[in-house]
Amino acid sequence: MFQINENYQKLPGSYLFSTIAKKVKAFTEANPDKDIIRLGIGDVTQPLAPAVIEAMHKAVDEMGKAETFHGYAPDLGYEFLRSAIVENDYKSRGCDISADEIFVSDGAKSDSANIQEIFGPDNRIAVCDPVYPVYVDSNVMSGRTGVYDAKSETWSNVIYMPCTMENGFVPEFPKETPDMIYLCLPNNPTGTTITKAQLQEWVDYANKAGAVIIYDGAYEAYISEPDVAHSIYECEGARTCAIELKSYSKNAGFTGVRLGYAVVPKDLKCKDVSLNSMWARRHGTKFNGAPYIVQRAGEATYSPEGKAQLKEQVAYYMKNAATIKTGLKNAGYTVFGGVNAPYIWLKTPDKMTSWEFFDYLLDNANVVGTPGSGFGPSGEGYFRLTAFGSYENTLAAIERIEKL
Amino acid sequence: MFQINENYQKLPGSYLFSTIAKKVKAFTEANPDKDIIRLGIGDVTQPLAPAVIEAMHKAVDEMGKAETFHGYAPDLGYEFLRSAIVENDYKSRGCDISADEIFVSDGAKSDSANIQEIFGPDNRIAVCDPVYPVYVDSNVMSGRTGVYDAKSETWSNVIYMPCTMENGFVPEFPKETPDMIYLCLPNNPTGTTITKAQLQEWVDYANKAGAVIIYDGAYEAYISEPDVAHSIYECEGARTCAIELKSYSKNAGFTGVRLGYAVVPKDLKCKDVSLNSMWARRHGTKFNGAPYIVQRAGEATYSPEGKAQLKEQVAYYMKNAATIKTGLKNAGYTVFGGVNAPYIWLKTPDKMTSWEFFDYLLDNANVVGTPGSGFGPSGEGYFRLTAFGSYENTLAAIERIEKL
Repeated sequence: MFQINENYQKLPGSYLFSTIAKKVKAFTEANPDKDIIRLGIGDVTQPLAPAVIEAMHKAVDEMGKAETFHGYAPDLGYEFLRSAIVENDYKSRGCDISADEIFVSDGAKSDSANIQEIFGPDNRIAVCDPVYPVYVDSNVMSGRTGVYDAKSETWSNVIYMPCTMENGFVPEFPKETPDMIYLCLPNNPTGTTITKAQLQEWVDYANKAGAVIIYDGAYEAYISEPDVAHSIYECEGARTCAIELKSYSKNAGFTGVRLGYAVVPKDLKCKDVSLNSMWARRHGTKFNGAPYIVQRAGEATYSPEGKAQLKEQVAYYMKNAATIKTGLKNAGYTVFGGVNAPYIWLKTPDKMTSWEFFDYLLDNANVVGTPGSGFGPSGEGYFRLTAFGSYENTLAAIERIEKL
Repeated sequence: MFQINENYQKLPGSYLFSTIAKKVKAFTEANPDKDIIRLGIGDVTQPLAPAVIEAMHKAVDEMGKAETFHGYAPDLGYEFLRSAIVENDYKSRGCDISADEIFVSDGAKSDSANIQEIFGPDNRIAVCDPVYPVYVDSNVMSGRTGVYDAKSETWSNVIYMPCTMENGFVPEFPKETPDMIYLCLPNNPTGTTITKAQLQEWVDYANKAGAVIIYDGAYEAYISEPDVAHSIYECEGARTCAIELKSYSKNAGFTGVRLGYAVVPKDLKCKDVSLNSMWARRHGTKFNGAPYIVQRAGEATYSPEGKAQLKEQVAYYMKNAATIKTGLKNAGYTVFGGVNAPYIWLKTPDKMTSWEFFDYLLDNANVVGTPGSGFGPSGEGYFRLTAFGSYENTLAAIERIEKL
C-alpha cells in the first residue's frame, strides 16, 4: 500500500489566507447586505499599466501567427526579459549580476516555496517572527522543521527571530547557527525594513556562519528612504551567500499575471557544487517557463512608459498606506510600517488577540485584515492592513474604523 | 555550513532536452549554412486557434480596467474553467468527476514533477521503459529512487516495465509490487497506447496492490481508435486509485502558454487521509494559480469554435504523423506509433545506438530527433520523431531521410 508524505499531517490548520477566505465567505453569506472592504490579503486592485496591456496584446497577436508563434520558453526565461532585469534591477544599482544568474518563474510564492528543495534535509532554517507563512510551511512539507508545539505555535527545528515593537522589528542574530536564513525586506507582514548597513551585517554574518540568505525582495518597489538597499547584492559579499527572489506582483500588479524571478549567483557554492547549476537543473526538470505573453508583459515594466506608469501605481498605493497610518494614529492606534512597504502593522487595542480583533473588525466595520498571529507567535497582538485596496475603499475602511 | 540536497548529485547528466538543445546549438554554430529541421522536442509549431486568441485579447482588456481586473486566482483555478473541464472532459464521457476534484496548474510537466511530493519517501515507483524523463528525475531529486547503476542506466529502487517491439509496447504487471505507477497513455515517447480493456486491468491491479496510478493523459486529443480510453476514469474503480494529469500543450498548442490540470478524486485515500486535501494544501501553499488570461484561453478551447479549430489543428499534426510513418516505412524503417499519438517511434537501422542515429541524422539530413535511450535503457536502439513540425518541414525532413 502506498504511503503519503506524513509531513503534511503535521501542518496545523489550513494555509492562512485560505482560512481567512472561508471566514469572510461565511460572514458574507450570513450578512448579504453588508459591504465588505478587503484589506487582508496582499492582492492589488489597480488595473495593469497601459504599457503592459499593450505589450500583452502584441504578444497575443504574435501567438496567433505561425511566423511569430512561441512554443516552449528557454528554461531560464527569455533573454529579452533577463537582460532587462539585469540592466534595470542590478547594473543600474551597481550590482554585479549576469543574465545567466536570473531564473524567470511564475512568481515569488512558487520560488520561495520551491527553493528549499535544493538544500539538505538536515539544514536548520531561521525565520523572522512574524513571517510570510510559505517559508515555514514549505519546509514543514519537506520534513525540515521537526516537531510542532501547539502551545507555543513553534517548530522544534526552526530558529525564530522575533521582530516586535521592542526591537524595532529588526531581527537579531540568533543564538543557534542557522543554515538557511529567510529575510523578507521590506518586510511582510510588518511593513518595516532595515538599513543597508544593517543588511550588510546580515551578509557578513551569513558568510561567516556558512549560511545562505534567502532574500525575498517582493516589496522593493515601495522603498522610499535612501538608506535602504533595493537588492541584497548592494552589500559586499552577498554573491557568496544570498539568493534573491523578486516578484512583479506588487510593483506592477501582476498577482493575477504570475511572474517573478530568482537570482542565484554562480559564486554561491557548497564545497564545489554550484547552487546556480542545481537551480538550473530544478528549473529544467520540474518547470516549463512562464508564458511568453507574461514574459513580454514583464519586459514592458522596464520601458520608459512602463516605468512611469508603475511609479504612479506605487504612489497610489503608498497614498493609501499614508491614509491608513494617519487615520489609525488619529484613532489612537499604535501603528508601524507603511513607509517603505505597502503594509501597516498595528497593535491590537485592549489586549485583544489578533483573531479577536479580526472578528471585531469584520463584525463591526466590515473590514477584512490579517491577524498577526497567523504569521507566527510574535505576531500575536498585532494586525496587518494592506494598502492595496482602492483609495475610496481605503478611505471608507479607515473612516469606519475611526468611528468604532 | 549549509548542506545541499545530495540527491541532485546523483542525477546523471543534464535533462535530456537540454542536452539535445546544446548539441543542436553546437552543430548550428559549426554549420551556419545548414537548414535544420527540428522533429525532436515535442513542441508545437502551429499558431494558437483564433478562438483562443480572441479570448486572450478579451482577458487582457479586462486586466486593463479596474472594474474587470483580476488579482490572485482561486487556489484550485477559476470556476469557469473547472466547470468547462468537468462538462467536456469528464461528464460527456460518463466519468464521475466534480469541479472540486480539478486543480488547474501551469502545465502537466510541473504537475507530473510535483505530484510525488505528497507521497511517502519510501514508496516504490514503477515506470514504463522508455519513459518521459521527468517522472524518474523528480523522484531522484526527492531521494526515492535508490542508487544509480551507470552500466544498466537504472535506479535500484525503481521498477522498470519494459515496452518494446517484443511486447507490443504494452507494459506488463511488474513482479515486485509498486506503490506509485506512472502511466502515460497514449505514450510518450513510443506513440503507442493500450486499449480501454487493458487499462481496466491496470486499474484493477492498482486497487488490489494498493498502488496509485499517476496517469498522464497529455496526448489524449490524438486518440483516433474507438477502443482507447480518453480518461482513466472511464475505467471502473479508477476513483480510488488514480490521479490524472492533463495538458493543453498538445491539443491546443499551449506549450508557450502554460496550462494543465490534475484530477485528484476525493475517493483516493491512504487510510483516512484524502489525497485531494493534500494536493489542495500543496496548491495553496506552494503555487499561486495559472494566469487569469491563460485560464480564459483554456476556457476558449471548449467553445464550439474553439473545439472545431483545435480538431483541425490535431488533424494537421496527425497528417504529419502519417507522412512520417509512411515515408519511413517506404524507406525501409521499422516504425511504431503515430495512430493515437503525435509521436513516431522507429527502430534505428544497422544496429546503430540511439545517439549514433541522432548524430547520423543531424549530420547527414540535418534533422533533429530524440534518441530513444534518453527515455530509458529499453529505448536504446529506438528513436523518436514528432509530428509537431509544419507540414512543409515534415515533408522535407522525410524526403531527406528517404534519400540517405
